[in-house]
Amino acid sequence: MSSPKSMRLGIVQCALGDTTAANLLRVFELMASAAESGASVILTPELFDGSYFPQHERESNFARAHPLDEHPTLLASRELCARLGVVAPISLFERDGPHYYNTLVLVGVAGELLGTYRKSHIPDGPGYEEKFYFRPGNSGFRVFQTPFGALGLGVCWDQWFPECARALTLAGADVLLYPTAIGTEPEEPELNTRDPWRRAMQGHAVSNVIPVAAANRVGEEDAMRFYGSSFIVDQRGDELASLSEDEEGFRVVTLDLARARSERAAWGFFRDRRPELYGSLTEP
Amino acid sequence: MSSPKSMRLGIVQCALGDTTAANLLRVFELMASAAESGASVILTPELFDGSYFPQHERESNFARAHPLDEHPTLLASRELCARLGVVAPISLFERDGPHYYNTLVLVGVAGELLGTYRKSHIPDGPGYEEKFYFRPGNSGFRVFQTPFGALGLGVCWDQWFPECARALTLAGADVLLYPTAIGTEPEEPELNTRDPWRRAMQGHAVSNVIPVAAANRVGEEDAMRFYGSSFIVDQRGDELASLSEDEEGFRVVTLDLARARSERAAWGFFRDRRPELYGSLTEP
Repeated sequence: MSSPKSMRLGIVQCALGDTTAANLLRVFELMASAAESGASVILTPELFDGSYFPQHERESNFARAHPLDEHPTLLASRELCARLGVVAPISLFERDGPHYYNTLVLVGVAGELLGTYRKSHIPDGPGYEEKFYFRPGNSGFRVFQTPFGALGLGVCWDQWFPECARALTLAGADVLLYPTAIGTEPEEPELNTRDPWRRAMQGHAVSNVIPVAAANRVGEEDAMRFYGSSFIVDQRGDELASLSEDEEGFRVVTLDLARARSERAAWGFFRDRRPELYGSLTEP
Repeated sequence: MSSPKSMRLGIVQCALGDTTAANLLRVFELMASAAESGASVILTPELFDGSYFPQHERESNFARAHPLDEHPTLLASRELCARLGVVAPISLFERDGPHYYNTLVLVGVAGELLGTYRKSHIPDGPGYEEKFYFRPGNSGFRVFQTPFGALGLGVCWDQWFPECARALTLAGADVLLYPTAIGTEPEEPELNTRDPWRRAMQGHAVSNVIPVAAANRVGEEDAMRFYGSSFIVDQRGDELASLSEDEEGFRVVTLDLARARSERAAWGFFRDRRPELYGSLTEP
């Protein structure tokens, strides 16, 4: 597949709740608007078909998971992508036999499946009890070729790990995409993670000379308020588009992938890396 | 050595030129002022004993290098540290037989040598012709215990590499310190690297939950203008102190190392890393 020179990337941000049908309607409506504005690739929030259930540890929530081949949210998303002619990573609660994963499925322009990534880094803390639900992903970091560019996919907590961003760029990604669910800390009301959250990903953008996007939800759900602030930055970490802390909507920008590739070569980071000195990063 | 709860960290920023004696006088004067303001650890710019000679590829510049045990800048710096009772990483052009390195020597409060680090990542481009001069460092990434905390040391170009910051934090650093020489791009006047430069290190701060400092030079030297902007950020990437693009001076702040250690534990990044998935980072 030849390397496209540019990509029209869209991000979607909205409030979500317990009613799956209403969530899909809302997200799909915004995806359609982004596609109308020319987006070829559309990024949506993490686990958008429901409330952010890992806020609590409840056995009943495991019933939200489905095998991928019969996952209602995936089936609906495939129809939508085919109708809009867009590529979209869809975030899902996956059941695979006795295992449960926080999974991203990349859907292609004909509604076909382009691949699967299972979230590698699983958080655990007040309001983010993901270790109760999700087995740490076993897919490894994966980059997917599409007609619009090579997509490096991570999920939420992955966005804090420089190793993930580096591995995806080493594997040939043109852009890094992170579906997200993040907001207030129910037991630490004074801790606002919004700025550090952006800085970590701006750092990935600079260190890997690669555009980065994150799509988050907004609104209150029980004890949490999700702070939106979805954004797209270019390969220097400069903001190309963003949404506010409570806005619902979408943004579409053109990423100059050829320019980013050229700058990535000229900066020389990948020329000057010293893999033989990085052994401690892979020690168990 | 027990882990101190806080560190008084100073950074020094100034213009430098071709006269070594004048440079040492200027830097030492600012170090003394920082010590008077209570700094126990003082960070100064990269290769502060001369102009930034790697701007050009000139054989005559190799005469600036000396073996460490007779390096005039190191001898003078040891006297100063003993007099002030401070710890300081001193950036030097080192000659070791036929090899030349961009080396950092950590000097202790009695003027003793606490250890040596040789810059691992060597840049090469218009205005930054370091590959002409410096052999890539063979010391590996090193953390040095001091009475004031554990110092993770990198040099300039190292500051763009997340692997270096991660390796230093994994090795027990309390703070990351980067002597720096960076400014305009002589052949790309429209490229301002200042913001990406800061973002890369703010990213390291957040991803490793560790305070980070960089000390740069200011002023014009031939075709280049060095943009200063030296800074100290805390473990969330929030700025604690900084200098402007042309200011000469120093800043001293108190780093709450105990608080940073506690936050580093609570964020869970080091609990949730997946070293078994990071193999591609160490591939030759």
